[in-house]
This record gives sequence, C-alpha cells and structure tokens, in this order.
Amino acid sequence: MRGNAPRVERTPLQRLRDATNDVLASSPARFAIIVFTVLIGLVTTLLMLPIASASGDPTPFSDALFTAVSAICVTGLVTVDMATHWSVFGNVVIVLALQIGGIGVLTLASILGLVVSRRLGLRAKLLAASDTNAARTRGGPVSESQAVRLGEIGNLLVTVAVSALLIELVLFAIILPRLLLAGFDVWTSIWQGFYLAASAFTNTGFVPLVDGMEQFSADPWMLITIAVGVFLGSLGFPVIFALTRFARFRARLTVHAKLTIVTTLLLILVGMIVILLLEWNNAMTLGDQDYANRPLTAFFISVMTRSGGFSPIDIGAMNGSTLLALDMLMFVGGGSASTAGGIKVTTLAVLFLAAFAEARGDRDIEVFERRIPTDVLRLAVSIVLWGATIVSASSIAILHITKAPLDLVLFDVISAFATGGLSAGLTTNDLPDSAKYILAATMWAGRVGTVTLAASLAAAQRRQLFRRAEERPIVG
Amino acid sequence: MRGNAPRVERTPLQRLRDATNDVLASSPARFAIIVFTVLIGLVTTLLMLPIASASGDPTPFSDALFTAVSAICVTGLVTVDMATHWSVFGNVVIVLALQIGGIGVLTLASILGLVVSRRLGLRAKLLAASDTNAARTRGGPVSESQAVRLGEIGNLLVTVAVSALLIELVLFAIILPRLLLAGFDVWTSIWQGFYLAASAFTNTGFVPLVDGMEQFSADPWMLITIAVGVFLGSLGFPVIFALTRFARFRARLTVHAKLTIVTTLLLILVGMIVILLLEWNNAMTLGDQDYANRPLTAFFISVMTRSGGFSPIDIGAMNGSTLLALDMLMFVGGGSASTAGGIKVTTLAVLFLAAFAEARGDRDIEVFERRIPTDVLRLAVSIVLWGATIVSASSIAILHITKAPLDLVLFDVISAFATGGLSAGLTTNDLPDSAKYILAATMWAGRVGTVTLAASLAAAQRRQLFRRAEERPIVG
Ligand SMILES: [K+]
Ligand SMILES: [K+]
Repeated sequence: MRGNAPRVERTPLQRLRDATNDVLASSPARFAIIVFTVLIGLVTTLLMLPIASASGDPTPFSDALFTAVSAICVTGLVTVDMATHWSVFGNVVIVLALQIGGIGVLTLASILGLVVSRRLGLRAKLLAASDTNAARTRGGPVSESQAVRLGEIGNLLVTVAVSALLIELVLFAIILPRLLLAGFDVWTSIWQGFYLAASAFTNTGFVPLVDGMEQFSADPWMLITIAVGVFLGSLGFPVIFALTRFARFRARLTVHAKLTIVTTLLLILVGMIVILLLEWNNAMTLGDQDYANRPLTAFFISVMTRSGGFSPIDIGAMNGSTLLALDMLMFVGGGSASTAGGIKVTTLAVLFLAAFAEARGDRDIEVFERRIPTDVLRLAVSIVLWGATIVSASSIAILHITKAPLDLVLFDVISAFATGGLSAGLTTNDLPDSAKYILAATMWAGRVGTVTLAASLAAAQRRQLFRRAEERPIVG
Repeated sequence: MRGNAPRVERTPLQRLRDATNDVLASSPARFAIIVFTVLIGLVTTLLMLPIASASGDPTPFSDALFTAVSAICVTGLVTVDMATHWSVFGNVVIVLALQIGGIGVLTLASILGLVVSRRLGLRAKLLAASDTNAARTRGGPVSESQAVRLGEIGNLLVTVAVSALLIELVLFAIILPRLLLAGFDVWTSIWQGFYLAASAFTNTGFVPLVDGMEQFSADPWMLITIAVGVFLGSLGFPVIFALTRFARFRARLTVHAKLTIVTTLLLILVGMIVILLLEWNNAMTLGDQDYANRPLTAFFISVMTRSGGFSPIDIGAMNGSTLLALDMLMFVGGGSASTAGGIKVTTLAVLFLAAFAEARGDRDIEVFERRIPTDVLRLAVSIVLWGATIVSASSIAILHITKAPLDLVLFDVISAFATGGLSAGLTTNDLPDSAKYILAATMWAGRVGTVTLAASLAAAQRRQLFRRAEERPIVG
C-alpha cells in the first residue's frame, strides 16, 4: 500500500468532508453523539457570556450548562427564570438551540441509524417509513448501497426543517392574534408567538411569558393550539410524512404510523381521565377551576406528558397519586424519531402486544394485520431496561444528595430522562450544583441514549456460527 | 349420550375426587386460585374467633383478613403486633397458614402449570427441572400423557413438604441453642425456634419475638442462619432438587438452576454494596453500629429483599435513596416455583440476556452454552408488565386514600406485591380499612398473579392458520 496508492490532489475542505463521511458511514450514532455534545459545549459557552444575561452579569457554569443541555435536549427543565434571566442575545441562542436540538442532530441520527442499520439507501428508507409497501420495510441486509453521505443528510435536513417550520408557522399564525388580544405589543407578540410555536412543536416547553402559561389556564384558543403543536411534534417525522402521503395520495398508513397514533391517543385519553378523577377536588389545581374548564386542563396536561412540558397550573400542588400517574406517562414519552423523549409509545405498544400474543397463545406478535418480528421486542426490552436503569441511578443519587421527598425527585428525574420538562418543583428550589450536573447528565443520557441504542444496537449484526441446544428456564 | 352411558356406581367421595380431577386437568391454575382463596377465607374466619387473640376479644375483619392473606401469601406485612396480639391458637393457625401458603398450593400450582403447559408427565417434568438432559426440558407438545391427577399431586406434595421440613429442622437445630443462650425457657425456645425456621424458609418474615429481630441485630449466629434459610427458600424447589442431584450424583445443573443461583448471588452482592454505601453514615441505621457489624447488616437486609422480610433495624429510618434501591430489589424477588415473590430473578435475567444479545447483534439469546427460546422472553415481558401494573394501580390508590409520602407507599406496596414483608412503616401506622383491603388485594394478586400467569399463559396454545406479512415499527 505504502506509496503505491495513486495520489489525487484534494483541497483541505474536501479532505474534511471525506473524513466526516468516513466517521458517518462507520457509525452515524457515534457521529451524532459527538456533534450533539459539541453543540452543548458551544451553547454553554455562549450562555455564560455577560451579554447573554439580562443583568449583564455572567451566568454561572452550572446554570448555563443546565440551560444548554435542557435546550439542546428539548427537555425544558430550568434552574433560572426563563422569562427574566436572559437577554435578547441569550434568548436567540436558546431558540436556535432548541430548534437545532429538536429537529436537528438526533432526529436525523435516529432516522440515519435506521438507514445504515437496515442496509437501505436513505431515500428508500425515508419512503419506506411512509410507504404502503410492507416488503420494502423488511429488515436484514439488502444489496442496495449502504453509505450515507453528507449530501443525503442535507436533503433529509431540508425535508425535516421545512416540515417543522411549516407547522411552526401555522401554530404561530394562530397564537399571534391571541397574544395581540391579550394586550402584548406587536413585536413582543411576534417574538413570543414564534418562541411558543417552536417551543411547542419541538416539545421543549420553555415559556418566554413573564407570567408563564398560567395566564392562559382557562383559554381554549391558546391551550388547544399548544397541545396540537406538542401532539404533532411528539408523533415523529416518519408519522408526519406518512400522514402527509395519506392526505395527498390516500396512501395506506404504515404499521408504525398507526401504532404511534393509536397508542398516543389512548395514552392521552387515559391520562386525561386519571387526572380528572384524582384532581377533581384538589382546590390547588382543578378544584379551583370552573367545571367546564377542568376537562380542558386535564386534557392539556395529559398531552404535555408526551414531553411537551408546558403547564397552566402548579404541578407541585398536585396529589402524590397524580404525580405518580404522570411519572408513568412521561416515562413512555412520544413517538420514535420525534422531538419527544421517553422510551417511546411504540416501545410500550410492542411490549403490550407481546404480552397479548402470549396471553392468547399466538405464535406471532401481530397488529393491524401485520406480523412484528421478534428482534423488535428485544430492542424494546433493551430500551426499557436502559431507561429504568438511568432513572433509578439518577433518582438514587439525587435523593442521596438532596434528601428531598421521593415524589419530587422521581418526577423531575423522569421529566429529565424523558425530556418531559414538567417540574414538581425540585429544579426550581436551589438545587446543589452536583444535583444539577446529575440531572443534566440524565437529560443527555435520556435524549442520546434511546435514540442511539435504537440505532447502534439495531446496526450490529454478529453472525453466530452454530445454534446451541435449546433449554427453557422457568420465569414468573 | 343421554341415558346411554354405562352406569357405574360411585361413592360421593369418588365423585368429588373425579370432579376435582376434571377441574384440575382442565385448568390447574384456576384450581390453585380457588383453593388458595378458600384457604384465605378459612384462615380469616379462624383468626376472627375470640380464642385466636391473646385478649380474648374478636379481631376486626380487616385485620384478620390482612393477617390471613399475609400468612397464606407468605408476605409478612402486619397491621397488628404479631408478638402480642395472637393467642397460642392464633399462632398455630398462622404457622400452619404460612407453611401451607409457602410450600403448598401455589408452589405446587406453578410446577403443575408447567407440567400441563408443556404436555409433560409430572414425573418427567420434575426430573427434567433438575436433570442433565437438556432435550427432556424442551417445550412443545409431546406424546406423553398430559393428565394431572390428585395422586400425582400427592406425590409431589410429599416430596416438597419433606424437603421443606428437612431444611426447616436443620435451621431449627441451629436457632434453638441460640434462643436458649439468649435466656428463653425451653418451650418458648422450641416454639419460637420452629416458628422462626418456618418463617425464614417460607420467606414469610413473621417474627414471634416480643423485641423483634432487633435484639439479634449484631448476632452473626442468628442473622446468618435466618439469611441462609431465606436464601434457600427463595431459590425455589426446582433449584433445590437440582442442587440435591448435583451433590449426590454430580449431575449437571440445569440452566434454570444456574441462572437462578448466579442472578440471586449478584443481586445480593449489589444490594449489599448499595446499602453499605448509602447507609454508612446514617446514625439511625448502620452509622450507629460497629464497623465490623455494618457489612453483616447490609448483607442480611440485601438477602431479605429476595422476599425474606426480617429486619434487624428500622427500615423506615433508612435514607430515601436506600428505600428506592430496596424497592427495585424487592420487585425482582426470588426464584421461580419458590416461596418467594416478585417477578422472579430468572425473569429479570432473561430480560437482561435479551438486551445483551441485542447489543451484541446475536440472533439467539444464549446463556451457559444453551439457547433460550423467544417465547420465554415474551412470558418474561408479560410478567413484568403485570407486576408494574399491579404496583402502579395499588400505589396510586393508596396514595390517594392516605396522602402518605410516596417513598413509604411505594415501599410497602412493592413489599406487598412481591411478598417481601419489609415495611417502611405504612402498614403499622393506623392504615384506613380501605387501604388495608387494597394492600391485601395486592398481596393476593402478587402471589397468585405471576405464578398463574406463568402457568396459564404458557398453557394456552392457539394455532395460527397463516403467517402475516412482516412489518417493522420503529421503537426507541
Ligand atoms: K420538553
Ligand atoms: K415475606
């Protein structure tokens, strides 16, 4: 090899491009994690600058890091007052961070991971994810080219960004008049309207309003718009593309799209009923509202557990029973390859489908007249174990540091893991720096982990040379 | 058919026997649940009698039911003081109940369920569970007779009861001198020694001593004996039989036995380390003890989370972080077909093995040079979902009724579900009757549920006429 390879003159830019392509082709998941972590460092640095804070004082490292992670991971947990702490410069950095975080690196990575793992070309995979042709979504090695190149990422990025911006603009157009009616001036309304639309669709849940969402707690116009934005964002791009194709060409919806939509709607309904039942008489939450307004609030909060993070009422004032129910809903989170976090609704659905198949004695796991391959169940189990491990370890550490009550700690840790963003009050109460770092690591692991687990685990394919004899341990 | 069947004269006893055989053959799981529930009713009635209480007053229904369920389910949670509330008659009823509960109905049912489900004769299956021949443990229909008859149950009952009594007698022989040395008189020592031995091996955790286990909190003799008893009981009869065969004939251990032992030891080690780390400086628990005694206490409590339920220290005084760690350990519980509860150690092991196989990209789930069939994973997922659902629903209900802190509620609910028997203090603090009933139902569901799920789900075999097209939803 040495010296014998033909020399082709390349510019430094071409060489950088080729090097990037190499990392990308060998492990898109690792590439995504690197870019993601570098972005967090960049945003942290920008937020520590004096010009990023409204007072002109530099923000401490722990708070800048926490806010950067929270924005890039679209978590929405805060340790400073988002409406007053940051300057215009700081706010611009934050909105850019949550846009990039929400529709950028990881959403792409999760789609790309699938592409590489399934040895499919990007375009084929993108179509497959929203296609009627079940055969094309089948896994395993196929002969098509497997390299993912920067150019293709560019195409995908444009598709995703245009869809996201389009939806955000529609949300903005609905929110804007409501803010003007509420008495905000034109520029504030435009600025905060777009901030809210982006914060909703990316499932971040940051609120730029000084009085928070609570001033709109009885306002269907605002609440339903935000809820729809969060709902759409939480479905994930493959589902949005599938829905678009369905609307335009009456294309059959994929099993993934159907499963995501049905499970999401079921979770929202169950959550709404549970919140209504448990909080109806709580004078500090629903009990204080008009009868007609209670279902709206319950619906709104139930949607927020996908990972929206907006709250028109004080979550910390809810009953312990409700908080535990919300914990479970948040842990599930939203749709795969979406801006939402958690173990994902399809993961939960696959687990339940497996249990139903077992209960009926079926050989195959089936749904919507399709068979789900067994390795999807294994992947689902891996993701749940990962999530449970992160949440447990983080909760135990923070309980030990803060000695705070379990309900607060568990709620905020699950909120961090699942990029939920609702808070029962732990993060806002002068958390020690060590606990802030653990929560930031939880947000990072929660957002990076499930996605890259899903991508990188599915990518690995070890050939086993022979099959071992079967033996059946007793379980249960 | 009508009138044409040859008439054979049968005594009423024969007819009862045949009817029982019919129910048993059609659904041993249902049969077990019926017998189990009838036993709870019987014990409740006996405990409500005035002669069952030390004071001679009738015990309220809620406390009698709670104690009966706790004894029959070998849970060990209490709402009255076990050392002072009951008379000799009451204590005899309780010891009989926990013996029958521990080694009786459900342990049998879980083995029988496997027998019927796998279409294996009882003797073949019992051997298979402790056999070297992997082929004989293979599932699926085989031509051997599948009917399970009362006579066979009798044989199995004798085998199980003799093993249990033998182990309990050995434990008793070790405990007795320690009690005599502690200054108890001979009859009290004999009575309480056997009560303790039975309570340990059956993983019940009731303590007849007026000062509880705390008087032995620095006593390796007592603590290690009890821990060994709990450990052996929590392994389960299939493992005990396998170990016996290994000791006598150097027979190869089954995958089930190896998996149970390795996972149990790992959990005990991890639990011990976590307890030591988190409680080292807690002056109300380990911090108060000699340095040398702390590892012993941590080891003992870690073993108890299999589902032993004895405690030499005040569990309620532990840190919230430790309680959460214990929650997770208790939820796992002990071995299958044992006197322990929880989702079972092999269930957890199978989930992790599946995740490791996924991470390595292996086609098969393998351990100890054997392949674990995929339907075992589905069963494991079903059991975990069942457990999580019971624990969540029960916790939410009790949180709503009592408004108690989440850490106490979650601990005692998981303890009830997994028949753990340790209490953070919820049950002993004047629980409302409605909460007692919910906890009793949780104990019942926890003990009956996983066993019969494992048995009855595995039993069902629906033939699917054709295979659907495969389609792969995105998870994670
Ligand atoms: K969020
Ligand atoms: K117990």
